[in-house]
Amino acid sequence: MASTVGQTITCKAAIAWGPGQELSYEDVEVLAPRAHEVRIKIQYTGVCHTDAYTLSGKDPEGAFPVVLGHEGAGTVESVGEGVTNVKPGDHVVALYTPECKECKFCKSNKTNLCGKIRATQGKGVMPDGTSRFRARGQDLLHFMGTSTFSQYTVVADISVVAVQQDAPMDRTCLLGCGITTGYGAARITARVEEGSNVAVFGAGCVGLSVVQGAVAQKAGKIIVVDVNPAKEEWSRRFGATDFVNPTQLPDGKSVVDRLVEMTDGGCDYTFDCTGNVSVMRAALEACHKGWGESIIIGVAAAGQEIATRPFQLVTGRVWKGSAFGGVKGRSQLPDLVTDYLEGRLKVDEFITHRKTLPEINDAFEVMKQGDCIRAVLNMQD
Amino acid sequence: MASTVGQTITCKAAIAWGPGQELSYEDVEVLAPRAHEVRIKIQYTGVCHTDAYTLSGKDPEGAFPVVLGHEGAGTVESVGEGVTNVKPGDHVVALYTPECKECKFCKSNKTNLCGKIRATQGKGVMPDGTSRFRARGQDLLHFMGTSTFSQYTVVADISVVAVQQDAPMDRTCLLGCGITTGYGAARITARVEEGSNVAVFGAGCVGLSVVQGAVAQKAGKIIVVDVNPAKEEWSRRFGATDFVNPTQLPDGKSVVDRLVEMTDGGCDYTFDCTGNVSVMRAALEACHKGWGESIIIGVAAAGQEIATRPFQLVTGRVWKGSAFGGVKGRSQLPDLVTDYLEGRLKVDEFITHRKTLPEINDAFEVMKQGDCIRAVLNMQD
Repeated sequence: MASTVGQTITCKAAIAWGPGQELSYEDVEVLAPRAHEVRIKIQYTGVCHTDAYTLSGKDPEGAFPVVLGHEGAGTVESVGEGVTNVKPGDHVVALYTPECKECKFCKSNKTNLCGKIRATQGKGVMPDGTSRFRARGQDLLHFMGTSTFSQYTVVADISVVAVQQDAPMDRTCLLGCGITTGYGAARITARVEEGSNVAVFGAGCVGLSVVQGAVAQKAGKIIVVDVNPAKEEWSRRFGATDFVNPTQLPDGKSVVDRLVEMTDGGCDYTFDCTGNVSVMRAALEACHKGWGESIIIGVAAAGQEIATRPFQLVTGRVWKGSAFGGVKGRSQLPDLVTDYLEGRLKVDEFITHRKTLPEINDAFEVMKQGDCIRAVLNMQD
Repeated sequence: MASTVGQTITCKAAIAWGPGQELSYEDVEVLAPRAHEVRIKIQYTGVCHTDAYTLSGKDPEGAFPVVLGHEGAGTVESVGEGVTNVKPGDHVVALYTPECKECKFCKSNKTNLCGKIRATQGKGVMPDGTSRFRARGQDLLHFMGTSTFSQYTVVADISVVAVQQDAPMDRTCLLGCGITTGYGAARITARVEEGSNVAVFGAGCVGLSVVQGAVAQKAGKIIVVDVNPAKEEWSRRFGATDFVNPTQLPDGKSVVDRLVEMTDGGCDYTFDCTGNVSVMRAALEACHKGWGESIIIGVAAAGQEIATRPFQLVTGRVWKGSAFGGVKGRSQLPDLVTDYLEGRLKVDEFITHRKTLPEINDAFEVMKQGDCIRAVLNMQD
């Protein structure tokens, strides 16, 4: 095969031409990477609720046409000038939370929210303000700095990390979002302490990964809260000790009451993995007076607000949040791959559906069903 | 003088007979302390907004008739059976936040909210469920476990701490609430870091004490926000580096915008000392992305709620609260007295008005004026 280095590559992508439309499987031109950019041959990508949210048109910052997708793994095809952190052939995971190691956020030990390319990433363009995708004669927008719903994509060099070559890419792709988000929230953001009681609201990929993080931190009770009874078995498989279905409580008993009762005063750590602002409130109020911390992970719909009485905080509860699990992607993602390879972090179990790129709209459909945790797309099949 | 030990003492108190009424200066009978109780001759007491709030009738948990007051210092007159932590003659400060050293809260290093007598204290009675105050032939309620608006009061032994005999009691009384609340919030709850930027909303006794705590922690910018221009001079006297009057900003500029601009992205720590839920929101949103922490200290009116977009937390801001500055009263209050005696903690400067017990209603009046920081009552004059 002739070298593609420096050339525009024409390949297949699933393009979102407009809000509420199905994705369109068609040819896309992927320009060569410029300075400090990396072109990745995407091998596998997960499909996440965030992609569906933006596609729906409900995200006020969503813009079209765009190449969605942010949970992807692949091999580096070529790199632009000045790229030193990855080289062609490397197995990589795309990072929607980049890590430049230079900005004040990266230099802080309190956050993983790199600020270097935030503005351009938010606008759907590369750091130089332009796009590397073209289709039907027009530029397409990038998404979350990753755009993994294309057989090839271009990302900033700070938005990609090389991982172990022996880690299967249909698994590592999931470390690009949900699993890392949950696992990191428990281990890095909350630093759950040994013996502490934990409640996790919402047993999707993120919530079940919080459970795994809590297990790794040697938590005491790990209580999963979900309205879908099928999630009880899922939760226990990942290490939950208890399951509460809020729709099956006795009359008049709230989930907060039930959790406070189960933990003799409230949970030490709670996690919202639902994006529902009422659930976020319940998660806070189910915390133990004096020290309970509630971590918001779920993304709420635009314009929605959380609320509580300030007394909840004055009496010692702490309300915080976590994005990408607090994980600094380039520094810390390989550690999660090690945890996976050595059997401490379950990944395979999340893959309930496998599809190919042409089947991507089916993958979005199955995601809406409760029995789907993660659908993984084989991008080259 | 004949010993009063074991006897009922008849003395003067300012009794709140009903909501919205003036306090009544009249005789009260103070029963002898029972097991694990201490009778204190109150020498000085501060007058605090919380007393006024309960007296107004707006506090839904306020009950009458009651002896208010919670910022008091005095000498131990006698002790009941089993009391070992103080003895007659000790100079003491009454603690509305007790410290039993035995409950799970006291054993935790994360909170000062002792749970031992919370239920009875909330109901306005001693831990055995009865009152030690009688007037006009009926029992009066206790308040916050302290009831310092009486020349003698009875408190649980876990609600009192002996302090240095050489510390003047007209100063130490103020360590029973406002000063400790602010100073501790900066030093214990927030643990403000050297060089960090701090904003303090509300420059009363609590807010100015947060400023002192921030100075002690070697903060960088210490910005006070208050609508009263007279507070600028006050703030600078206590160590503030900047002052912002939200009513004097250019058109369209919010206090959040202004603080973010002054601190190149937001404050590392903010403190609400106003009790206003809109201010609490501004304090949170003025925090730096990634790590800024906002601490709620002010007490909001009943039923009011705080709100924000969850995105504020997901992007790294932390919302917490502080009560009595996170200070464990029996263990830590003497350290604050040392800070005062050695010149590191200003107390004298807060006393803008001095009154006697019969003048207590005047003291409530002057408190409502902006030029009053603290009115101290001489209880035996």
